[in-house]
Amino acid sequence: MSSEQPAKKRISESTIHRLSMYYRTLSLLQKEGYETVSSKELANREKLTPAQVRKDLSFFGSFGTRGLGYDVNELKAKIGEILGIDRQWKLAIIGIGNIGSALVNYKEFSRQGFSIVKLFDNDQRKIGSNHKGIIVSDIKNLDKEIAEDGIEMVIITVPATVAQYMVDDVVRAGVKAILNFAPINLKVPPNVYLRNENMSMELEYLSFAIVNNHTPKNSK
Amino acid sequence: MSSEQPAKKRISESTIHRLSMYYRTLSLLQKEGYETVSSKELANREKLTPAQVRKDLSFFGSFGTRGLGYDVNELKAKIGEILGIDRQWKLAIIGIGNIGSALVNYKEFSRQGFSIVKLFDNDQRKIGSNHKGIIVSDIKNLDKEIAEDGIEMVIITVPATVAQYMVDDVVRAGVKAILNFAPINLKVPPNVYLRNENMSMELEYLSFAIVNNHTPKNSK
Repeated sequence: MSSEQPAKKRISESTIHRLSMYYRTLSLLQKEGYETVSSKELANREKLTPAQVRKDLSFFGSFGTRGLGYDVNELKAKIGEILGIDRQWKLAIIGIGNIGSALVNYKEFSRQGFSIVKLFDNDQRKIGSNHKGIIVSDIKNLDKEIAEDGIEMVIITVPATVAQYMVDDVVRAGVKAILNFAPINLKVPPNVYLRNENMSMELEYLSFAIVNNHTPKNSK
Repeated sequence: MSSEQPAKKRISESTIHRLSMYYRTLSLLQKEGYETVSSKELANREKLTPAQVRKDLSFFGSFGTRGLGYDVNELKAKIGEILGIDRQWKLAIIGIGNIGSALVNYKEFSRQGFSIVKLFDNDQRKIGSNHKGIIVSDIKNLDKEIAEDGIEMVIITVPATVAQYMVDDVVRAGVKAILNFAPINLKVPPNVYLRNENMSMELEYLSFAIVNNHTPKNSK
């Protein structure tokens, strides 16, 4: 562990999700014309305690001024930098089925700096079709096009049976992070970050909560 | 805390997600004709350690037989019961935009016992239209139709600005669990379970990992 960044090593998933929520709230506060915000006001909007907000933000250095609160623009910029969304990311979606097509149109992505620049499918009826100005590419050219375009993140929405092949391809092409919707455990090398999105498992989490009459700890 | 179920109180989110994964793997093993499975084989397929598998499963009582492993059918039935997917759940989707329409067609839901029976929207062009045999209802009748049909879970895919109103309506109508795709913190009473799905936040989690060169603990 390097001494330059000891704090980062202890950041939990839930802290990062709260940073994302703060970022959204700060964007809203900007629009509403606020220049400063107190930890109490931020906590109210997030349905958290002020102590939690102060703890989260102190983690990355002391932003607030006692009595004045946080500077909205400055805090938003700082959180954006921590989350790595102070820049544009080029993404590809692999698999243009129901979920893939819906994600092409998902406005939240571009709003947060995630720009979908390529779409891939293996279905001849889909290859060449236009989705929001992007022409669907043949999956055969996956690694070549990913490498040429310098795409760093991909979203995988192919069937579970072929997901690992796609992952191996894009990893070879230099992709650094994968958001996976296929219901399977994928293998990636240690320098590639993987996140699994399984909406059916989210419902199972809820059915668990109903039948057992409780939610687990660390609930999101 | 009741003495009948002390163990359940300590179950973490990641344990429940692993149970969901075991359930999927056991379904696959059934199809492949396996009658028993060892903790080692289960661990291999999930990319976990055998000790982790044994720990997870022992949490709910002792299923395995030393030397023989677990009975596939029995273990699958038991995990299905724990997750509450040994029955059918009736769901409604509120908001038939890009994501909502994609979810109507999402086969994983019905495969795991989640049956979408109602769709709601406020757009006159969508009301009355047919999605996989389900006619989109007017959002005006939301609470009435939810209550009449005995729907216990809903998926919210409306804009953030109106999501809380929808939630208040369905809670009054008797809904017990909500999967929320709107990028907002929703308020629900303590007896209603809420789960937030924010795909843009998942990408922010990945951009955080890339720029900070590490993943947080408890990563999913």
